[in-house]
Amino acid sequence: MSEINLKEYVTSIPDFPKPGIIFRDITTLIQAPEAFTEACRKLTEAVRELKPDVIAAPEARAFLFAAPMAIELQCGLALIRKPNKLPRKVISQTYDLEYGSNTLNMHVDALKPGSRVLVIDDLLATGGTVDACRKLVEKVGGKVIGFGFVLELSSECKGREFLKSQCDAEVFSVIEY
Amino acid sequence: MSEINLKEYVTSIPDFPKPGIIFRDITTLIQAPEAFTEACRKLTEAVRELKPDVIAAPEARAFLFAAPMAIELQCGLALIRKPNKLPRKVISQTYDLEYGSNTLNMHVDALKPGSRVLVIDDLLATGGTVDACRKLVEKVGGKVIGFGFVLELSSECKGREFLKSQCDAEVFSVIEY
Repeated sequence: MSEINLKEYVTSIPDFPKPGIIFRDITTLIQAPEAFTEACRKLTEAVRELKPDVIAAPEARAFLFAAPMAIELQCGLALIRKPNKLPRKVISQTYDLEYGSNTLNMHVDALKPGSRVLVIDDLLATGGTVDACRKLVEKVGGKVIGFGFVLELSSECKGREFLKSQCDAEVFSVIEY
Repeated sequence: MSEINLKEYVTSIPDFPKPGIIFRDITTLIQAPEAFTEACRKLTEAVRELKPDVIAAPEARAFLFAAPMAIELQCGLALIRKPNKLPRKVISQTYDLEYGSNTLNMHVDALKPGSRVLVIDDLLATGGTVDACRKLVEKVGGKVIGFGFVLELSSECKGREFLKSQCDAEVFSVIEY
């Protein structure tokens, strides 16, 4: 089987959400089973050596990749959600956006202290969201050993460098722009 | 291997979000790989005979089950999201909640006309959300052939009866309360 070119399944939308920005839309990749399967497979194989106990993922798009990976790697899945979505006791982390700020919550018992945690998201841009996820994991005594992304905007953003400056976790991605 | 009792992994929270309601929390099921895997496997096997072309799923918890199922069944995955989340041209559907209303969007090209569509969600209560999903699917020319849920609140709610009154799709669930 010839290799699938995953970039062909990503839709690039110029000037969205504002002029000068190219939005990379993965919904067209997810609509195509051969591409969605291959993206999950590639990211899973890239991180398999880390042997995570738990995958932590921020809602909502990250759930699409984190769920098949958690099943394939047979590790726990810790949901990181916006406020008022999780019904039991949570911890919170607020982080800055370009304009304003955002808050993420995680159940206090989403993972056991000492867990080796892999943070998964669909896209690495600045790294702000997943770094907030790392702080949530650390607040409950887990250790982030890696970050995994389907898309990485490496030419426009310095998310990888930022994450490396914050902790000693490895960073993996499948499609780079 | 003895069968896993999936109900043991669901956390029941009395009087949440209001007095008299028992909230069924599946985050504890998702944290346990053996239970999460088994829940996905059971729902997948229940619906496999339908041979869907596409799974449609409303954000966010449904993504956790829809994604592994789409990979296992090798069918497309159409995301149904809250307003302002999808970057391309969408169609909308508004539906009533107990207090107020909710709107869901789907890309107009999320599925091809004539597609056989399975709607997946984590929980069947009144059926309002997934019936709105059905209307979105039909607006772009798809046909909903089935609904699949991890949890069904069959003693408190009449969601199954409601869905059956709206269309001739089959309804499947893994855990009943």
